[in-house]
Amino acid sequence: MKYSYISHLYCPKCEAVYDTKQQHQLCICGSPLLVDYLWDELKAELKRDEVAKRQPDLWRYHELLPVENEKNVVSQGEGMTPLIAMPTLGADMDVTNLYMKDEGLIPTGTFKARGAAVGVSKAKEVGVKEFAMPTNGNAGAAWALYGAKAGIQSTIVMPQDAPKITRNEVALSGANLYLVNGLISDAGKIVGQAVKDFGLYDVSTLKEPYRIEGKKTMGLEIAEQMDWEMPDVILYPTGGGVGLIGIYKALNELKKLGWVEGDLPRLVAVQATGCAPIVKAWQENKNESEFWVNSSTQAFGINVPKALGDFLVLDAIYKTQGCAIAIDDQAMLAEQAKVARLEGSFICPEGAAVFAAIRQLQKEGWIKEGETVVALNTGAGIKYPDTVNIEVPTLEKGDSIEREQIAGN
Amino acid sequence: MKYSYISHLYCPKCEAVYDTKQQHQLCICGSPLLVDYLWDELKAELKRDEVAKRQPDLWRYHELLPVENEKNVVSQGEGMTPLIAMPTLGADMDVTNLYMKDEGLIPTGTFKARGAAVGVSKAKEVGVKEFAMPTNGNAGAAWALYGAKAGIQSTIVMPQDAPKITRNEVALSGANLYLVNGLISDAGKIVGQAVKDFGLYDVSTLKEPYRIEGKKTMGLEIAEQMDWEMPDVILYPTGGGVGLIGIYKALNELKKLGWVEGDLPRLVAVQATGCAPIVKAWQENKNESEFWVNSSTQAFGINVPKALGDFLVLDAIYKTQGCAIAIDDQAMLAEQAKVARLEGSFICPEGAAVFAAIRQLQKEGWIKEGETVVALNTGAGIKYPDTVNIEVPTLEKGDSIEREQIAGN
Repeated sequence: MKYSYISHLYCPKCEAVYDTKQQHQLCICGSPLLVDYLWDELKAELKRDEVAKRQPDLWRYHELLPVENEKNVVSQGEGMTPLIAMPTLGADMDVTNLYMKDEGLIPTGTFKARGAAVGVSKAKEVGVKEFAMPTNGNAGAAWALYGAKAGIQSTIVMPQDAPKITRNEVALSGANLYLVNGLISDAGKIVGQAVKDFGLYDVSTLKEPYRIEGKKTMGLEIAEQMDWEMPDVILYPTGGGVGLIGIYKALNELKKLGWVEGDLPRLVAVQATGCAPIVKAWQENKNESEFWVNSSTQAFGINVPKALGDFLVLDAIYKTQGCAIAIDDQAMLAEQAKVARLEGSFICPEGAAVFAAIRQLQKEGWIKEGETVVALNTGAGIKYPDTVNIEVPTLEKGDSIEREQIAGN
Repeated sequence: MKYSYISHLYCPKCEAVYDTKQQHQLCICGSPLLVDYLWDELKAELKRDEVAKRQPDLWRYHELLPVENEKNVVSQGEGMTPLIAMPTLGADMDVTNLYMKDEGLIPTGTFKARGAAVGVSKAKEVGVKEFAMPTNGNAGAAWALYGAKAGIQSTIVMPQDAPKITRNEVALSGANLYLVNGLISDAGKIVGQAVKDFGLYDVSTLKEPYRIEGKKTMGLEIAEQMDWEMPDVILYPTGGGVGLIGIYKALNELKKLGWVEGDLPRLVAVQATGCAPIVKAWQENKNESEFWVNSSTQAFGINVPKALGDFLVLDAIYKTQGCAIAIDDQAMLAEQAKVARLEGSFICPEGAAVFAAIRQLQKEGWIKEGETVVALNTGAGIKYPDTVNIEVPTLEKGDSIEREQIAGN
């Protein structure tokens, strides 16, 4: 048995093929590259029951991941996050079978750790010494910290409005950190120049082929955790869209292996009304999105005006009879409070947008009675201290609490 | 097979015995109560290999936990946090076999979720409708959120200096939150009065018997993750000390079951020099600690001037030939940066104190060549944004990075 059954890289646009021993970025045609595997061998040699016996992290699927030598694996125990039933919230929105895949329980507190773990491991394998990336905060934090563990130097550029906690993570890792007075697209231009000037490996979203392989493990895990029965709907907060592309890739791969059967779940891209390029493109039945001018949302992770992989996101939506939907910040933050109050989970605004989307899609009849619905919460609420505004009474030593102060009594 | 093999509650001081169907607080003698189980039945009916096949959360040990009816379990997927090898940091401090149990990867981002999951579940089972507690932040956040999921109302009082993120967690859960201009001991007095005035269930540290059962799962998991071989040393950041008491209880229980053999690991209580009552008591060979006046440390979770369970912590240290050690804030924060840089993990200051303690104990020869050492990191660094001070250059749109700005090149 091989550790990885990786076969080659291919371009989903022009069908060019690349080997996996060298460092690659985009295809010469400008498209992101995808990883393919030796499906016949894999089908013959790996059984899903075998996977179930392994350690509860994403490396349990190592045959389906691109790292060929186990010694290159850079891991901090990421993956196999819980899939949690949400019966009380579900009852509140008339969705009987509601689940949350909670990506808050992962190193750095967001799903970005998956892409970083696999991406950094493969970067180590192909000899990368230094990489650079623009980020809205969480991806940069994950890549800088996994880079530190791998001994790879990193340069990270983020908007000055990105969550402050992510600055700490990047700085403490020993990375070169820069803020920019602008958006992630402005950070991207600065990184692009640095990559050219200094020959750095560019790990911007989809500019290296392996982060998507890390993120696809969310799809693999959902299938395994549902006992290899696919849900009816999976909703994903969509900025760069790599998570959604990854889940779509994962479920297709599981079908190839015969581990799941039947129709794929309908995939839903959830965006913010202040930055909804994918939603607009889907509404207009287009295959690519347009740059969203003056984008703005408190859900910082999905403030991406134009995603390089937009055509892959839209393809996944169309092929699965999914949809795209935009949620305003107010509805998002109201839903964040509801999830905490009804299910005891402090989720991130991006995750809250997904639950608000479910509420709306149920009302519109798009989600039907009895359907099984999986919401991706992409991160822990504790990474976004500024989205919650509260007023708290302060007592002095020796004060006592008055009963009428206690709510609900 | 029963879901729980709980037998009764007992007092470790006066040996009084209590049933487990009623709500209990302290023993009539004032001591915390502990939970006992039906060891003969358990030994006959439960095998450790059986546990290994279960879901990766702390409820895999349900027979060793106090909740008798599975329907009362309030879970968000907590437990089976990773045990991570730290070879680079280990080499840096000449400790060859260094591991970190990472309690950052758990709901609410700290180990407090374990106590809350089991404590709230059992509170639900014995019919609690409303509880109250003082907290340094993290425990209150965990209990309020798990309380919300269980449908139990909570009243939480915390020092106004407690980490601000924990205010958000408590407030969003719908709990009654109060700040106090003072320490956790002042918050405790206010809670004590409210408990008396309004007949609330008091879930202050060790004033209810079940939180410790949740925390003991850290010990169960360490044993299972080390393939039922006990490490030589386990170090724990010690405020209230429940984690250390729990780990000691767990390892003794595993010995009773015959799942582990040999000497228990030497248990080490790590405190801050600004609040070190257990260290002082241990140095003076006493069985109880004295109230630490004017306590102060950036590691807020271990700012506990006098712990109710101090005698149990000291007993565990003495019985295992362990020790107690104090670390100053500067060494703690320097170690936090080192762990990020060398192992890519952004840990909390309390966890960083543990690694600083290992460094010191190795220098002193107390930790010996080749010993296996497990450090508990009790929470994610992202919950403490104010402990990291960094300066970051800000660029304007269109600026470029100068090569000399890039460190390490």
